[in-house]
Amino acid sequence: MEVMTVLHMNKGTGETSYAKNSTLQSKIISVAKPFVEEAILEVLCSNIPESLGIADLGCSSGPNTLSVISEVIDIVHAKCVNMRRLSPEIRVYLNDLPGNDFNNIFMSLPEFHKKLKVDKGAGFGPCFVSGMPGSFYGRLFPRKSLHFVHSSSSLHWLSQVPSGLDGKAGPTLNKGKLYISKTSPECVARAYADQFKRDFVLYLESRSAEMVTGGRMVLSLMGRISNDPSAESAFLWELLSLVLMAMASKGLVEETKVDSFNAPYYAPSTEELKSEITREGSFTIDYLETFEASWDYFGCGEEYVPFSGERVAKMVRAVVESMLESHFGGGILVVMDELFRRYAEMVDDHLSKNRAKNILVVVSLTRREAPQSL
Amino acid sequence: MEVMTVLHMNKGTGETSYAKNSTLQSKIISVAKPFVEEAILEVLCSNIPESLGIADLGCSSGPNTLSVISEVIDIVHAKCVNMRRLSPEIRVYLNDLPGNDFNNIFMSLPEFHKKLKVDKGAGFGPCFVSGMPGSFYGRLFPRKSLHFVHSSSSLHWLSQVPSGLDGKAGPTLNKGKLYISKTSPECVARAYADQFKRDFVLYLESRSAEMVTGGRMVLSLMGRISNDPSAESAFLWELLSLVLMAMASKGLVEETKVDSFNAPYYAPSTEELKSEITREGSFTIDYLETFEASWDYFGCGEEYVPFSGERVAKMVRAVVESMLESHFGGGILVVMDELFRRYAEMVDDHLSKNRAKNILVVVSLTRREAPQSL
Repeated sequence: MEVMTVLHMNKGTGETSYAKNSTLQSKIISVAKPFVEEAILEVLCSNIPESLGIADLGCSSGPNTLSVISEVIDIVHAKCVNMRRLSPEIRVYLNDLPGNDFNNIFMSLPEFHKKLKVDKGAGFGPCFVSGMPGSFYGRLFPRKSLHFVHSSSSLHWLSQVPSGLDGKAGPTLNKGKLYISKTSPECVARAYADQFKRDFVLYLESRSAEMVTGGRMVLSLMGRISNDPSAESAFLWELLSLVLMAMASKGLVEETKVDSFNAPYYAPSTEELKSEITREGSFTIDYLETFEASWDYFGCGEEYVPFSGERVAKMVRAVVESMLESHFGGGILVVMDELFRRYAEMVDDHLSKNRAKNILVVVSLTRREAPQSL
Repeated sequence: MEVMTVLHMNKGTGETSYAKNSTLQSKIISVAKPFVEEAILEVLCSNIPESLGIADLGCSSGPNTLSVISEVIDIVHAKCVNMRRLSPEIRVYLNDLPGNDFNNIFMSLPEFHKKLKVDKGAGFGPCFVSGMPGSFYGRLFPRKSLHFVHSSSSLHWLSQVPSGLDGKAGPTLNKGKLYISKTSPECVARAYADQFKRDFVLYLESRSAEMVTGGRMVLSLMGRISNDPSAESAFLWELLSLVLMAMASKGLVEETKVDSFNAPYYAPSTEELKSEITREGSFTIDYLETFEASWDYFGCGEEYVPFSGERVAKMVRAVVESMLESHFGGGILVVMDELFRRYAEMVDDHLSKNRAKNILVVVSLTRREAPQSL
């Protein structure tokens, strides 16, 4: 699977679209909000630059995309008013892989700009919003052009299926599973961890070149506290494996295809994150916090109400459908509804017995003084 | 009609798509090629900047989009090799209205970048290609960020239907016609000319703020030599008016809708162009040349072979379909095939009797020293 060209959230605004099924990602954004606010204020603290560069990496396409940007712009505006300073020229870069539905985002920009003018007055900005398609595991922007980088629910996606697990050479090592499972051989977890490290360091090196000294970056991604990668956050993949294997046993999908499918996903431990950030060396860690992300509950004192299996299935479908289609071929489209109907049932059953714990990690970083080039 | 949200070339890559029906626009690009080359070399003449900003305004979405950019990059690369200089960081901005099919362009970027690396070597660039949706009749880019601006087959599109002709207030002034016709009242031509001037000056003022001193701009657009705007290039609109009125007489489209439709298009005279450029004052004219653009013939000594009516109809359809749908409502989709079948016949008939002369104007400009702000 060519992640670069395959991975994208479901397009459009229909029933199975990501735009309609991104409540969880929206919750994650709100958890990271105080960190974003702190970081932006810190960037503007000493002086407000003439031209402020802001990037949202893995922006996707839906209600969340422009909400993050709006929030950042609100903070900049309030700070300028507070300091009685003219607002900077704001450059906003929306990044995602080329298969992302940029058309959908762009169509909402005239309304976005109109609202900005009404809310903030004609003297604010100008604010230039552009789309930058490409992988964030590599350079995307000019040298020293960014003051703030945001990335939410994206860095748990790898640049590729871990080498050795893509089924291109040698035997399939992770039979009947889509991700690291309790029954997976040890080499599977190692291959995943290695791929994550390679990708994450490349991410940090690229941002290091693109950000100004003192620039800030807030990242949120699925992770884990435990050292065991098959625990906790892996259950959604585990259940999807079970559904696919059950369907394979009835001849509805090819079993060998299930065997050779491995998700380009990794939920790192906080230790892995810290160790790679330190190793790469361009950034200092201001905050690294974990949140229990149990669907409707984010450890903020709210009551725990699990999502329905149907709702979880829709969210997962909006995210993984493009990968399934690419790996299994167009034939799987015929059974896609059936697949996620069964998945919804299984999630319901699981959530009735277990309190599913996903761990969200929020990391806030500052670009160090010492220059580092890529 | 909200031109900002309505005007776009037909999306996708199907039979009626712009991507499949943009041969004429491709010819126009090749006519302007020597001007582009001269301008780029002039920009790089004194010194090669560390970071080079290039914008294609009204880039559309099809084979032409990246061909212009490739050409520009080829010239930059050759110049760097020739001067034994490291290549600059290249920032490419692709602009069009938000309704443009940016997804289609973005999907071809991985291949574009791969080819660039193979052809020019890993040491060239980096080259960052981004999409900037919005109207070029206003600011799109940061101050002094561009060294070269290109715009082909775009500036003959107005920002709106000329005020007074949009049918919103008062009587419809241009009954049965879509553009300035021999039988149109004089106020129609005046409204069109005024709208063009307002738009074009706003275009120049915006680019003036965005371009560095000495930056170059090459524009090509449909225009005219004659002072009479109903002559020459107006015949495609004239024939479309006739087809729509014929269909209205059979009840296939609403006659009042034809009466109230006016194309947001204007083919200016070379005198109008010169006078607005001089009046705005930020640019000097390096070249202003006209070419007879008679479909298959561009006054370059080739034999004159007219396009078939069917081919012309496809080209026109790829460009105007979104406007027709917006103005006439979804109902017109049912008769769209019929409309362009009749149009093709009429074009065939016309071209068998007349040598249709479209005039292409190519203007090459330099951003003057004196700063001008917007």
